[in-house]
Amino acid sequence: MHVPMLINDFLKRAVYLYPQKVAVIEGEKRITYKELQDRVNRLANTLRSLGVTKGDRVAYLSPNTLAMFEGFYAVMQIGAIMVPLNTRLIPDDYDYIVNHCGAKVFCVDADLNHQINPIKDKLVNIDHFVLLPNEKRATEEGWLTYEPLLEKASPVYFAEEMEETDPATILYTSGTTGRPKGVIQSHRGLYFNALNTIIHLRATDQDVLLHTLPMFHVNGWGTPFSFTGMGATHVMLRKIDSSLILDLVKNEGVTIACMAPTVLNMILNDPKAKVTKVEQSVRVTLAGSAPPPSFVKAVEKDLGWEFIQVYGMTECAPFLTVAHVKPHIAEQGEDKIHQVKAKAGLNMLNVELRVVDSEGEDVIPNGQDVGEVIARSNVVMDGYWQQPEETAKAIVNGWYHTGDMGTVDEEGYIEIVDRKKDIIISGGENISSIEVEGALYEHPAVLEAAIIAIPHERWGEIPHAVVVLQNGSEEVTEKDIINFCRERMAHFKCPKSVQFINELPKTASGKIQKVVLRKPFWDNSERKIN
Amino acid sequence: MHVPMLINDFLKRAVYLYPQKVAVIEGEKRITYKELQDRVNRLANTLRSLGVTKGDRVAYLSPNTLAMFEGFYAVMQIGAIMVPLNTRLIPDDYDYIVNHCGAKVFCVDADLNHQINPIKDKLVNIDHFVLLPNEKRATEEGWLTYEPLLEKASPVYFAEEMEETDPATILYTSGTTGRPKGVIQSHRGLYFNALNTIIHLRATDQDVLLHTLPMFHVNGWGTPFSFTGMGATHVMLRKIDSSLILDLVKNEGVTIACMAPTVLNMILNDPKAKVTKVEQSVRVTLAGSAPPPSFVKAVEKDLGWEFIQVYGMTECAPFLTVAHVKPHIAEQGEDKIHQVKAKAGLNMLNVELRVVDSEGEDVIPNGQDVGEVIARSNVVMDGYWQQPEETAKAIVNGWYHTGDMGTVDEEGYIEIVDRKKDIIISGGENISSIEVEGALYEHPAVLEAAIIAIPHERWGEIPHAVVVLQNGSEEVTEKDIINFCRERMAHFKCPKSVQFINELPKTASGKIQKVVLRKPFWDNSERKIN
Repeated sequence: MHVPMLINDFLKRAVYLYPQKVAVIEGEKRITYKELQDRVNRLANTLRSLGVTKGDRVAYLSPNTLAMFEGFYAVMQIGAIMVPLNTRLIPDDYDYIVNHCGAKVFCVDADLNHQINPIKDKLVNIDHFVLLPNEKRATEEGWLTYEPLLEKASPVYFAEEMEETDPATILYTSGTTGRPKGVIQSHRGLYFNALNTIIHLRATDQDVLLHTLPMFHVNGWGTPFSFTGMGATHVMLRKIDSSLILDLVKNEGVTIACMAPTVLNMILNDPKAKVTKVEQSVRVTLAGSAPPPSFVKAVEKDLGWEFIQVYGMTECAPFLTVAHVKPHIAEQGEDKIHQVKAKAGLNMLNVELRVVDSEGEDVIPNGQDVGEVIARSNVVMDGYWQQPEETAKAIVNGWYHTGDMGTVDEEGYIEIVDRKKDIIISGGENISSIEVEGALYEHPAVLEAAIIAIPHERWGEIPHAVVVLQNGSEEVTEKDIINFCRERMAHFKCPKSVQFINELPKTASGKIQKVVLRKPFWDNSERKIN
Repeated sequence: MHVPMLINDFLKRAVYLYPQKVAVIEGEKRITYKELQDRVNRLANTLRSLGVTKGDRVAYLSPNTLAMFEGFYAVMQIGAIMVPLNTRLIPDDYDYIVNHCGAKVFCVDADLNHQINPIKDKLVNIDHFVLLPNEKRATEEGWLTYEPLLEKASPVYFAEEMEETDPATILYTSGTTGRPKGVIQSHRGLYFNALNTIIHLRATDQDVLLHTLPMFHVNGWGTPFSFTGMGATHVMLRKIDSSLILDLVKNEGVTIACMAPTVLNMILNDPKAKVTKVEQSVRVTLAGSAPPPSFVKAVEKDLGWEFIQVYGMTECAPFLTVAHVKPHIAEQGEDKIHQVKAKAGLNMLNVELRVVDSEGEDVIPNGQDVGEVIARSNVVMDGYWQQPEETAKAIVNGWYHTGDMGTVDEEGYIEIVDRKKDIIISGGENISSIEVEGALYEHPAVLEAAIIAIPHERWGEIPHAVVVLQNGSEEVTEKDIINFCRERMAHFKCPKSVQFINELPKTASGKIQKVVLRKPFWDNSERKIN
């Protein structure tokens, strides 16, 4: 029997089995699953009364709040398409994205609507601006007020007829070059990611998930769906604050949180972490560049939280791999475990991965040979919104090309060594910029560092370091930095030159824009970098 | 991106991530996943060389062996349809089923081929008979020999182009009336059941699954797929023997087994169970009628195995529910836990259940009101093979009608009280035959009992008991039995008459054929039972 895989199935199951259980905690507020469905129904009917129908886009700009959470379900329940926006963009970006996706309704948190007011007139497709309340403010002229809309709406459940291939969300990626692209994910794609999350992050009804990861970021990695399906509880978090996070972990009995490495680092370095003892088991899921094994150890030993590294990207809903430790590896002791836990890991269920060279041939699975990671799975996007030529570049012969360079070992563990665009090819040798940066970060005076390729007559490219020094650090010379690296790695990998600057250019989501750093070196070069 | 959900994905993942891990243990034999894929490839190519192509049926008659296990993957990999047969049928049944499904190749274990030899000439569609070896014998005239076929076949991987909606298996149900019907399950249906198994039975690569449940029975509940996908190890078991089971649990580090209540009862009553101590955690999954909570307690306390009750049927691949204990119920103490663990339980993910009255309206979820359990899910079959009218009776308005009468409580827990056909309606009151039988089984002299409806002028129907006494039990009268029941339940539920017989009529899979018991009472009645 064919029953379409629809995202609202997860909420339906929670409402059926856990109606009286707390679904969402926001500050002092507690909303049960039954109440949540009631509010979602009212929001769904509100959106319909505002003219939103199947296939229409609804944009959200909000930190992690109950209203944002409700948005996911209400929008998808009526067959519309959720477009959650990065809260760290600038008005010009919002102008571009909201017009590009053609959203009809724009729901914006009261903390952020000052970013939208100056561009309201430019958002020509938006019929209605809805203000989502913050703690202090719920109304503003020119904005519809959220709670009264819900109050006067019908609480009767309505779900649009849908197929699982219908788009559920468009997620704009903060590319390091050019304008963001809109990743289209279907209900089926999100559903598969949710099942994989349930399986590989072991979601249960005993879980209390703290939303440390922004929900605009790949829909909070799909946790609003996966953990709801199992009847877990969601704890909202408006702002990253390590002290507040530690309090919530303790007071709300948080068992799992997903976050960026910087946030976990902040928690680890908070003196409060040492004195906050909790009874429940806590696991923390990280993505991003591979941490040093010593970091994994610190999290597991000092903080006492189980460390789970995952790897993925917006185009993949997002999960491709999880750094699961196989039983026979776990027997090899803690050092080995921490080392394996720092990798990207093993492909999840229903995810096929390959690591291929420039000819498209599989590299030898020896953990050494580097190639591009490519993926085939239901979690891969359907394409970029209204950019078929970009889609065709990303999905070739049925395989999504991640743009990440990595290795795979004989056990199937993937390690990411670099972005394809950032790898340096010097005298025919591949140099991983991430590896060299790792050495630079060990230098006590280095706050941030980026290694880029610059043109060189003999070697084609050579590694060049761009370094931001710690405040108040001793004077450090170019030679010091180069020698420091030479003590740690093969000489051909070490930077040949070092540039000190005050700040690295970054995207809104915090990725270093190496393209900006490279530009001055390549503009007048005869050779051009790929 | 659409990637079809195909059963061979599970084996592919295991071969990719766990090539050197033991996949199958059969006696002294150990086969790694890499070796298993090699053997599956050879079998797949053998079947192709025997003329099997996409959509063709291949029948298997075998106990739980490596060869049977290989059959599932090889048959499905080439797009053919696996038809595993109940080993407890008689030649006349095999004649009917093999001809009905139109299988081209028939693979039969050497323990069982004596059942097939007398009917070989009648199996007109079978082009090739393949003998699967037992411990003593591998060849017989008129039968192809398994291992030499594999040896000479190509080990090159071949997989047919398939869609997830293609049929993967036809499972003949041992109905309690009439000829067995062939349940068609697609790759998608089996895939969903496997995902649900992984989630709700918590399958991991640390698992060692003992195949105590016959693989012919709903493909071993899909465990050859689910546990393979996670990289677990499978231990084969040719015959049910509680002593051998306990040895394997200890010696092979078994962590999970699925079985019928009678098998678990056998293990529990084996004196060896008391002296067999194992280090690993063991969980046991049961289906069938709800056990008394005292039985759950005995399994968990005396045997030390985690007890997991599930509910389903061949038509549902098979799982619909699992008796998961919600956290807030677990807090209510052990007695409550054992009571909840004995229920059919909560609907799994992607399974919608309703309990409806004869008008199709939902009964009140009070754990009291009885209705028919109906299901809507991807795990529901596509239909009965070449029996569209039977399919139309079973799936009405998109809901599969299980024929099971049950209750649902406010927490969503389902309890099955009776088969629809077996419930007794006396003076307008529903009487659960299972409930009355439960009371009869408490009588020390009763070995087996069945309660059936017989016609009655005033009440319409009344409960009638058919009882088999224990060997050597004291003399027991009809009045004794009736009084025994009256001490235990409302008088209207108690049998009004008792019949003593030597043996209850049963199907090949051990279900009591109440239709046979009812027949003489109803043949001359003006009223007819539904």
